Amino acid sequence: MTPRIDDLPVRDELRGKSPYGAPQLDVPVRLNTNENPYPLPEELVDRIAERVREAARNLNRYPDRDAVELRTGLAAYLTDTTGHRVGVENVWAANGSNEVIQQLLQTFGGPGRTALGFEPSYSMHGLIARGTGTGWISGPRNEDFTIDLAAAERAIAEHRPDVVFITTPNNPTGTAVPPETVRALYDAAQAAKPSMVVLDEAYIEFSHGDSLLALLDGRPHLVVSRTMSKAFGAAGLRLGYLAADPAVVDAVQLVRLPYHLSAVTQATALAALEHTGTLLKYVEQLKSERDRLVSELLALGYEVTESDANFVQFGRFDDAHAVWRQILDRGVLVRDNGVPGWLRVTAGTPAENDAFLDAVRELKKEQTA
Amino acid sequence: MTPRIDDLPVRDELRGKSPYGAPQLDVPVRLNTNENPYPLPEELVDRIAERVREAARNLNRYPDRDAVELRTGLAAYLTDTTGHRVGVENVWAANGSNEVIQQLLQTFGGPGRTALGFEPSYSMHGLIARGTGTGWISGPRNEDFTIDLAAAERAIAEHRPDVVFITTPNNPTGTAVPPETVRALYDAAQAAKPSMVVLDEAYIEFSHGDSLLALLDGRPHLVVSRTMSKAFGAAGLRLGYLAADPAVVDAVQLVRLPYHLSAVTQATALAALEHTGTLLKYVEQLKSERDRLVSELLALGYEVTESDANFVQFGRFDDAHAVWRQILDRGVLVRDNGVPGWLRVTAGTPAENDAFLDAVRELKKEQTA
Repeated sequence: MTPRIDDLPVRDELRGKSPYGAPQLDVPVRLNTNENPYPLPEELVDRIAERVREAARNLNRYPDRDAVELRTGLAAYLTDTTGHRVGVENVWAANGSNEVIQQLLQTFGGPGRTALGFEPSYSMHGLIARGTGTGWISGPRNEDFTIDLAAAERAIAEHRPDVVFITTPNNPTGTAVPPETVRALYDAAQAAKPSMVVLDEAYIEFSHGDSLLALLDGRPHLVVSRTMSKAFGAAGLRLGYLAADPAVVDAVQLVRLPYHLSAVTQATALAALEHTGTLLKYVEQLKSERDRLVSELLALGYEVTESDANFVQFGRFDDAHAVWRQILDRGVLVRDNGVPGWLRVTAGTPAENDAFLDAVRELKKEQTA
Repeated sequence: MTPRIDDLPVRDELRGKSPYGAPQLDVPVRLNTNENPYPLPEELVDRIAERVREAARNLNRYPDRDAVELRTGLAAYLTDTTGHRVGVENVWAANGSNEVIQQLLQTFGGPGRTALGFEPSYSMHGLIARGTGTGWISGPRNEDFTIDLAAAERAIAEHRPDVVFITTPNNPTGTAVPPETVRALYDAAQAAKPSMVVLDEAYIEFSHGDSLLALLDGRPHLVVSRTMSKAFGAAGLRLGYLAADPAVVDAVQLVRLPYHLSAVTQATALAALEHTGTLLKYVEQLKSERDRLVSELLALGYEVTESDANFVQFGRFDDAHAVWRQILDRGVLVRDNGVPGWLRVTAGTPAENDAFLDAVRELKKEQTA
């Protein structure tokens, strides 16, 4: 007998809903969740085991509630890779960038407040808004998935959201947002309310351009959100973080669950930070594979959205879901994010990408046969 | 310059607030956060390192979103230790019981809804209610910290809360709640609304009595919440879980952040479950130390609240905070939970408890000198 959620006194807005999440299918080639295809190097695996062993010896005690050593390491990583100095007081960490975003919305959104994002974008922004009682406003994009600045400014002026999300590179489209657009949207958001602006840079390490971390200077309401899931090849670790004015770091501590970040998570993340150099080499390989996917898809006659991420949006299809299924039938799992006409493929290993390209090449042949 | 939270557009109810958390002081004897004083046995530390090493090899992939192996292990633990059969479909896990409670309040509480607890109790219930926009109602207790059933039933009938918290053994008082009280409160909550009833059994392994898990039978709105922080000696792991009707497990998945539980957390918890027998032996030692604390405190002329947990509430003091400070001056950190006239001491190792007893013995002598 299926359990009946609707027989329980759940909140009205949850009735009839399904849990968020990509289908988890057992398929040879999984290019659907923007995971990094490269397992961690064996010396890092050893180091993780070593640091976790140390942490486990003290596991009967609560972890460092403020994760000071980890935040210091993340601050050093940001400083080293962007040239913009941030310190431990600028950085906060949580269980995945989803929890970072949840804490931000609990602090600056919530009942009676609204958040706005430019859709299609990372759908968890809207779902976490719902989960925190924050009203969600879907902002506009151009037909090519870039942000229409004039329309965006009008939307901010009209809706006066408390939180504005800007995702760069954007997921699922791969589209980078230029710094002048972020500056203008920040100014528009301040003029309207003032609001917090969350710049989601989950995929920034894969970008042709630079991180916009330096925009934090003089912008106390700007928050840059990051993750170790993609560039660090550690989706299983669930470590997200943010950089912002120290007041923001203090403010989210009013809503964070005490001791939210386990000692084993902190130990594992610290080990990964010791191996940044090696991990960023994989990023370079993935960038070149991403560029290869773009050029081969174009050569096959597909449309492709310009991508600064470790994935590529391609189309167009009259029935994207049918094509998703046809690719799956060939052993390759890509993602149907519900953007009409488009699908998204993650850049995998060269062999995985070849398998994907073979599959879509076959589809093209069948279509033109 | 101190960062100014209040210069940010934070929610009104957060203005002027401080983050929750016990003072973290570097003191020889820390008996303030109900941690288990026994480090994990070395063979478990080895096993954690081994299982985390395996998990780290696949860390580039997202963790099992539904944590099926872990929930199966937790279900077996509950079944083995209570004799009441629960399966994987009855169990859900999250980052500490705080996150379990947060998910329950996001599902069954939230804006426009209320939760009620019998105070003093675990203060995070009210704080997480605030964090999820759930109205908080402070229910009554008797002078001896037991639940006044008639008054409690009246409070439920009057306020018609959506969620009722019952903590047994209660924190910070140590008071157990008899099964007939839980049954009566469940019935009262159903008559009023119907509401969800959350039975917080974080400390149940230390109780003289049995878990009330069997009350789940025929009570689809009852949820039992548990943690590995205390009995498993794994506060650093942050692993909380619940047992309930399968519909409840399905419902919380509508609000859980996807992949909320990291692969290293799942691996570590699974390792700890393999060593349940050893860990429960430490629980027996702590129970006897807890009983020793009770009898020695009574012999010294202190008042003591009957305790079924790994801590003891003692008093009474005209100025409990001053006494807290006097004990701290003697190198022992206990907890001032803000219950007027009372302090709480965690049962530590025999040596730690001796140090605490020496300190309070000295205080008594000074008073009577």
